[in-house]
Amino acid sequence: MSDLRPPENQVGGHRASANKLGPLIDGSGLFYKPLQAGDRGEHELAFYEAFSTHSAVPARIRDTFFPRFHGTRLLPTESRPGEPHPHLVLDDLLAGLEAPCVADIKIGAITWPPSSPEPYVAKCVAMDRGTTSVLLGFRVTGVRVVDPEGAVWRTERPEVKALDTAGVRRVLRRYVSSVADEGMDCALAAAVYGGKGGVLSQLRELKAWFEEQTLFHFYSASILLGYDASAVAASGGAGGVRVKLVDFAHVAEGDGVIDHNFLGGLCSLIKFISDIVPETPQTQPLGPS
Amino acid sequence: MSDLRPPENQVGGHRASANKLGPLIDGSGLFYKPLQAGDRGEHELAFYEAFSTHSAVPARIRDTFFPRFHGTRLLPTESRPGEPHPHLVLDDLLAGLEAPCVADIKIGAITWPPSSPEPYVAKCVAMDRGTTSVLLGFRVTGVRVVDPEGAVWRTERPEVKALDTAGVRRVLRRYVSSVADEGMDCALAAAVYGGKGGVLSQLRELKAWFEEQTLFHFYSASILLGYDASAVAASGGAGGVRVKLVDFAHVAEGDGVIDHNFLGGLCSLIKFISDIVPETPQTQPLGPS
Repeated sequence: MSDLRPPENQVGGHRASANKLGPLIDGSGLFYKPLQAGDRGEHELAFYEAFSTHSAVPARIRDTFFPRFHGTRLLPTESRPGEPHPHLVLDDLLAGLEAPCVADIKIGAITWPPSSPEPYVAKCVAMDRGTTSVLLGFRVTGVRVVDPEGAVWRTERPEVKALDTAGVRRVLRRYVSSVADEGMDCALAAAVYGGKGGVLSQLRELKAWFEEQTLFHFYSASILLGYDASAVAASGGAGGVRVKLVDFAHVAEGDGVIDHNFLGGLCSLIKFISDIVPETPQTQPLGPS
Repeated sequence: MSDLRPPENQVGGHRASANKLGPLIDGSGLFYKPLQAGDRGEHELAFYEAFSTHSAVPARIRDTFFPRFHGTRLLPTESRPGEPHPHLVLDDLLAGLEAPCVADIKIGAITWPPSSPEPYVAKCVAMDRGTTSVLLGFRVTGVRVVDPEGAVWRTERPEVKALDTAGVRRVLRRYVSSVADEGMDCALAAAVYGGKGGVLSQLRELKAWFEEQTLFHFYSASILLGYDASAVAASGGAGGVRVKLVDFAHVAEGDGVIDHNFLGGLCSLIKFISDIVPETPQTQPLGPS
């Protein structure tokens, strides 16, 4: 427990400090997310409990695209000594990456569950219009790139909120470019976005599930992308690419309807990323024999 | 010109009368849609002009899924004698059907272009939440079914606005059921929704285009379904199934982004319809030779 610390590579949400609750890691591969205030924390916990045991969720989808859930734990907090706070215990999605590069992308043109009260809807609509959510079906909420030498490039909060379409394209290129290269060389695009096991192939597998699944509507959830810049530099291969859904405080029941809002945004993200990496064709046309 | 009359099978929009402008047909296969007030009419005209000559729109998509545009014409109107009104001249999408059955489905959880002024957004959000648009990604705005003997079943306005998820399922079953059968036998589901040239196969072709096209965002547009109950009864075949996009007063430029909002709603509609007709597999698995 003494090793608990805020993750260095965090790009979204509050950072744990003397004044604020925030996620912690312990170096053994676990990630502790403080239960959010109001009913959000309870709601996210209820989702993890339902999802992790739901018989209609394919094991392959759960294991590939979601953090594993290990229950909850009361942890002491810096901000309120003597008042331990409940935390969700999850897999640390970036564990084992030597030079972890991460992007957090909130999916969906609509970020409010349909049952939300009117003032919350109005607030979210204003935010969704003020960012790229309505226009693109997603918004980038944070990106952090490191290189094997430890140089770091990251988005700052006010700047990332103000991104327009061109800015989103730039930052998605920056995510797969050498940190040292201001010109955004996209040197890692083929390895990270393209190819077998790359981001695009994983997003397309996720899309196929969203075309069918009617269990959950993932309002305001994010897709977290991760890869290891050191592994990519060493092998040129996919370098531990991860594509994970996170942030489930606003998930609603699907009730037999697909999550068209998440699916649309996911398709838009796929198009943006495929515009960056010209793919090699997956199958060759057959010539005359 | 003397044959101009309101179409019998109209299910959406205003019906032409002594007090109101509404669409007219002339029996020769043309459909005259009065230009709407304000900038909506000009906007829809501008869309038809841009779309019908756009080199990046595949001819197959334009011809299959959109009404052909024949320019505009000034027509006398009952409501204001001596003041001819400009009309869009389009193909009558139901021409040639002996017993035309039609469904109008407004696609998208969001029906307002992102550039809309705030009061219009608030009005649309309220309407989209009050109907099934936000929940399902589409709403049914009208259905009319006739049988070869001329019996008619149709939705009424207040009732169709109040449909919930179960109501949408019912009305999509009603659309392919015998008029005389209150139990909704779905007798025509396999012929109209399933099979080669059926609604599902056409919607899937449209979906493939929407996964790629970044030219237009079709806010508040509808998919019009049509088929001929007489032809289906006679042949058991697809019976002139039509799948067409209509109503383009709120189309926005795509600017390199896919129409994730229309695409999401389209995928949801595909799922609803495929839940009604259990399809025969399109390809047989290969056995050992």
